[in-house]
Amino acid sequence: MIELRPVIFVIGILLSVLAVAMIIPAIVDISVGHPDWQVFSVAAFVTLFVGVSMMLTTRASLGSFSVRQAFVMTNLAWFVIAAFGALPFQFSELELDPADAFFESMSGVTTTGATVIVGLDFAPPGILLWRAILQWLGGIGIIVMAVAILPMLQVGGMQMFRVEAFDTDKVLPRAAQIAGGIAIIYVFLTAVAAMLLWSLGMSGFDAVAHAMTSIATGGFSTYDASVGHFDNAAIDWAMSGIMVLGSIPFVLYLRVIRGDLRPVFADTQVRWFLTILAIAILFTAVWLYRGDLMEPLQALRYSTFNVISVMTGSGFATADYGRWGSFVVAVMFVLMFVGGCAGSTTCGIKIFRLQVLYATAHAQIHRLMQPNGVFFPYYNKKPIPDPVATSVMSFFFLFAASFALLAVGLGLTGLDFITAVSGAASAIANVGPGLGDVIGPAGTYTTLPDSAKLLLCLGMLLGRLELFTVLILLAPSFWRG
Amino acid sequence: MIELRPVIFVIGILLSVLAVAMIIPAIVDISVGHPDWQVFSVAAFVTLFVGVSMMLTTRASLGSFSVRQAFVMTNLAWFVIAAFGALPFQFSELELDPADAFFESMSGVTTTGATVIVGLDFAPPGILLWRAILQWLGGIGIIVMAVAILPMLQVGGMQMFRVEAFDTDKVLPRAAQIAGGIAIIYVFLTAVAAMLLWSLGMSGFDAVAHAMTSIATGGFSTYDASVGHFDNAAIDWAMSGIMVLGSIPFVLYLRVIRGDLRPVFADTQVRWFLTILAIAILFTAVWLYRGDLMEPLQALRYSTFNVISVMTGSGFATADYGRWGSFVVAVMFVLMFVGGCAGSTTCGIKIFRLQVLYATAHAQIHRLMQPNGVFFPYYNKKPIPDPVATSVMSFFFLFAASFALLAVGLGLTGLDFITAVSGAASAIANVGPGLGDVIGPAGTYTTLPDSAKLLLCLGMLLGRLELFTVLILLAPSFWRG
Repeated sequence: MIELRPVIFVIGILLSVLAVAMIIPAIVDISVGHPDWQVFSVAAFVTLFVGVSMMLTTRASLGSFSVRQAFVMTNLAWFVIAAFGALPFQFSELELDPADAFFESMSGVTTTGATVIVGLDFAPPGILLWRAILQWLGGIGIIVMAVAILPMLQVGGMQMFRVEAFDTDKVLPRAAQIAGGIAIIYVFLTAVAAMLLWSLGMSGFDAVAHAMTSIATGGFSTYDASVGHFDNAAIDWAMSGIMVLGSIPFVLYLRVIRGDLRPVFADTQVRWFLTILAIAILFTAVWLYRGDLMEPLQALRYSTFNVISVMTGSGFATADYGRWGSFVVAVMFVLMFVGGCAGSTTCGIKIFRLQVLYATAHAQIHRLMQPNGVFFPYYNKKPIPDPVATSVMSFFFLFAASFALLAVGLGLTGLDFITAVSGAASAIANVGPGLGDVIGPAGTYTTLPDSAKLLLCLGMLLGRLELFTVLILLAPSFWRG
Repeated sequence: MIELRPVIFVIGILLSVLAVAMIIPAIVDISVGHPDWQVFSVAAFVTLFVGVSMMLTTRASLGSFSVRQAFVMTNLAWFVIAAFGALPFQFSELELDPADAFFESMSGVTTTGATVIVGLDFAPPGILLWRAILQWLGGIGIIVMAVAILPMLQVGGMQMFRVEAFDTDKVLPRAAQIAGGIAIIYVFLTAVAAMLLWSLGMSGFDAVAHAMTSIATGGFSTYDASVGHFDNAAIDWAMSGIMVLGSIPFVLYLRVIRGDLRPVFADTQVRWFLTILAIAILFTAVWLYRGDLMEPLQALRYSTFNVISVMTGSGFATADYGRWGSFVVAVMFVLMFVGGCAGSTTCGIKIFRLQVLYATAHAQIHRLMQPNGVFFPYYNKKPIPDPVATSVMSFFFLFAASFALLAVGLGLTGLDFITAVSGAASAIANVGPGLGDVIGPAGTYTTLPDSAKLLLCLGMLLGRLELFTVLILLAPSFWRG
């Protein structure tokens, strides 16, 4: 058996933080005189009560976690936070049913951005802020997890980043310090983003909400038409930039603070990320222009925003790119899987894994030519250790297999082909909108059956926790100890 | 530079064989008095002339091939045979344009089964037979390549089968002998299949044509409605059985001949293949029955035939399964990628690779639990050597990447999403029909633009030659020598 006391203790801490966060929308609803402030207050109280009870009944030391405990804690943390985060959705004036409320909350904390709510434009401010807060907390949670927990657990090749951050570079030698430094940067970037968006014409409220959900590459907006609501080129460009900032490894920003800009541009992952992005944007813009859909500058603006939004897994939209023609739909479908850099708020397969896969396949092709030669795949000018390569390749297989099973499962619930396939991809890569008329950038997930929504929640959790973290719980030997 | 003389010599031999094969449809057309016999005769003459010229001008010894020469030869062989095999399509009364003729021929020799011809029911017998012959030759070509060439070239994990067939078991120690034995079995199975189908009510001509294209898991039929034309349960079941026979490693049949049936059922690859097939058939049948689409027995008959046809990459159809609802479409899409066993006529990722990927991911998950433990993935009760696992995982990545690029490329030619995505999958896995109204089981590829057809030809070749064989030609160092 696994000793769960320290796990429950940590979950208690996290729930207490969540409860404190619920007070913010309560205050906002009070300030505009909306009765939902009671819902947030009660939800905060219930959450705090459960959280503190967990802490008091376990009172564990946080000294050392076993690997098994760390896996259980990671899963439980995201699940429990999603469950308690759903309370305001269920009991507010929106009156979402339990499946819808859980879907919206899970979509929030995993920074997916898929929504079941129609009528955001008239929704009370508390709820809109709560959606932004969930994504914002999810975003920082992910970065800290990626920097402090996953490398230790050696999940999907993330051990590569343990070596870099903790052994070789000694930027800030301890995980807690790094997490603290990253949290400060996260808050700072969010504040700068909010001020920028405000100065460009958003209301203060919208600016804060969109700053929070774009730095988290989350995708929740305060309007049904998403960022398209503002119809403002400057806002589109600013949001594009913020999403890119959220997709870069946050440890690199620690170096920037010390005045050293070089590592950001020298990092091979960042270079690949920006290159893939630039190519996709350019092709899409040319397609839009040559198809007589837009003028050149307009094409560049719309393709930049929406390509970045899909590839970083944000999920905002400034147009229904499902109507931009076959090429764009196919490109968006592929980009969904790509994602951003490791150690950022993005999800998907992630750039460094594609680099490792490419390097391994490349070395493999040279091995075919000279069967007796020795060829090493390289990453960042260092040979990739075999265990890392195997880990990354296993991740890729599990990603594809989970996607396939999820798509078939969604088909079983009755979704049409494009909704099932793009919904599965969008959930597991934490993008948000899918493709097609139902769940595309102009649609929502509200009409889907509950069974499909719960499957999608599972997909979001799988993708967000890098598959292995969830799948390991299915191994019987995990529980035998 | 690579010395091409022995390569050209072998291509010359193959072209001469192709020329002789062209005489058969010529004879059939003469017997029914159809003028197309002249087309076949001229095509045979041209092909023979080129083939013999190649042999005479090079007159190389076949002693030993370098690895580079083997790669060039494999690529060139399939390309050149597809090009000359297209001659009858272009100049017969069908008068296909060059792109269509090449597409039909490539679809034939790669045993894909995608067609651009509408009106098969009224097409001259010579052309119908030629399509069957191309697939039949392609089928035996693939098996021999998989047994004799790919393991030597260590392509995509195929080296696993070198060990089994040549070193450990010593069934028939030399590649040529094995190839000869397999050819005899192939002819024998085709003859038995033809007699079976004839006895069940097909005309002699249809029986021979369908026997050839089903043992090759090819999928060309002599009717627009494919096997659905016969509307005969016994024929459906017989064809289902023949496709399964074509998907089993042919080396196993060598043992069966010696009276030992055990290896066929003990082989782990065969067991997985039949298990996956059974699960998919059962789920589809239950879905059809519960959706009130069919009676139980009818549901089983139709699901068995069409699931086998898609998963083995044959591509026959007895119904428009695109209309069987969302679940079936999603299942068919996933099954397209799966394929049959290595060393058979099927294509796709193939069962043994999925087994290696599963075993590797499984070992990886246990490694996460005990970071200092040693875990080996197993195949057929033997540990999988690291180079094999890496090779298989690289194959999987290249398969996914090629599929994604092909789908995007098809989007660029203007195909809608479902046609682009399912067409890319169908080509690279050599299935035949795609999904949706255009290229689905009830449609054809005839309306696609030429650019899309040529991209699909590239996809078929990539898939058929197991990716690495084609992609290695893109490495500059391959040509520097």
